[in-house]
Amino acid sequence: MQHVRVIAFDADDTLWHNEIIFERVHERYRELLAHYHDTATVDRTLYATELRNLELYGYGVKGFTLSAIETAIELTEGKIGAEEIRLLLQQGQAMLRHPVELLDHVAATLPALADRFELWLITKGDLRDQERKLEKSGLREYFRAVEIVSEKDDATYAAILEKRNTKPAEFLMVGNSLKSDILPVLALGACAAHVPYSLTWEHERSTALPEAPGRFFTLTHLGELPVLLNC
Amino acid sequence: MQHVRVIAFDADDTLWHNEIIFERVHERYRELLAHYHDTATVDRTLYATELRNLELYGYGVKGFTLSAIETAIELTEGKIGAEEIRLLLQQGQAMLRHPVELLDHVAATLPALADRFELWLITKGDLRDQERKLEKSGLREYFRAVEIVSEKDDATYAAILEKRNTKPAEFLMVGNSLKSDILPVLALGACAAHVPYSLTWEHERSTALPEAPGRFFTLTHLGELPVLLNC
Repeated sequence: MQHVRVIAFDADDTLWHNEIIFERVHERYRELLAHYHDTATVDRTLYATELRNLELYGYGVKGFTLSAIETAIELTEGKIGAEEIRLLLQQGQAMLRHPVELLDHVAATLPALADRFELWLITKGDLRDQERKLEKSGLREYFRAVEIVSEKDDATYAAILEKRNTKPAEFLMVGNSLKSDILPVLALGACAAHVPYSLTWEHERSTALPEAPGRFFTLTHLGELPVLLNC
Repeated sequence: MQHVRVIAFDADDTLWHNEIIFERVHERYRELLAHYHDTATVDRTLYATELRNLELYGYGVKGFTLSAIETAIELTEGKIGAEEIRLLLQQGQAMLRHPVELLDHVAATLPALADRFELWLITKGDLRDQERKLEKSGLREYFRAVEIVSEKDDATYAAILEKRNTKPAEFLMVGNSLKSDILPVLALGACAAHVPYSLTWEHERSTALPEAPGRFFTLTHLGELPVLLNC
């Protein structure tokens, strides 16, 4: 591997659980609409609404909640009641208040790495929600830089590296999304370590197989990172 | 005035119109609920919901839309129909799609200042919405730094100045909100120019009168800034 000086981490489903919370909300959402439509129709329509609104809302719980309400009205042809919409609002607020549960090995690995590397956090989503999760996580002190961005593509990473005077050859990105954490970083010539999470939101799925010998790695969990870095 | 090297601008209601868009939406909101409650009750309840949710949602159109739906259900005791909630969703999307209208003098003043000072943008709100407005404004090229933050208090400004190696004595903040743009900046020892907007959201109102001779200025419009800076 190239000589890494800076390691950046994705947050949701890399450092702490996130998709599992959405998945539980999806289950309750399907139950709420079970009188009207089968699971597949509910899932497909909600996802279509989310994609249609993504450019406007961006990522995060607030946009998801708005799309869930819009979809519920559409799928019930306006028959859904205000009480059920209130439930969706409450569910969104419960997601924002949800405790942060770190993934295995995170609590031990980050302090060890912070002694030897400069650590950054690069995440997308609601600004305040991500800041709150970082505070709740107890990990804030290990990061020299925190970037909450609206999209994680080649241009985003290039701008962050330039702003922080960091060459791609010195940079390793660690995350669970091939699409957002791995492919754009490899495209810049940097290193990337993929740590798959058990669930992946449809929008983050990628079938592209990274071709970057010596720069792309797959880990079972974050605890394998020090071994990869020979430390 | 101190020797200013960096000028930072607030965005909403400093560079472009914003509160007027919320005000028009408020008018339609009052009409929607006019069957149930008088204007004062609607306004008071919506504002109370917004404040209660501010810590959770942060600033911006998405949080406002969620609070407006919650308030409408509360004020109608669940009698509001799905069609009316759909209208609120559409109104929120229309706000996000709204064209950016620059305030007078902004288009001519920023390029002139950008030749002589380092210009920054410091704004709060939805990440993606603020980025989109900045792109639509055509002003992006004049800013050397763009900071979209979840709160504008003393700690926020201190962190930005430190990160960008800028002393308070070199810094001038320009904005329409005494609470968010002026008072915290004066507290750090920097300069601040207040450019009042015709409308101010209740949450941004302040009765505190800045006491900072030689560091606090009030302007009628942004076109007065070059004169203040003797350029």
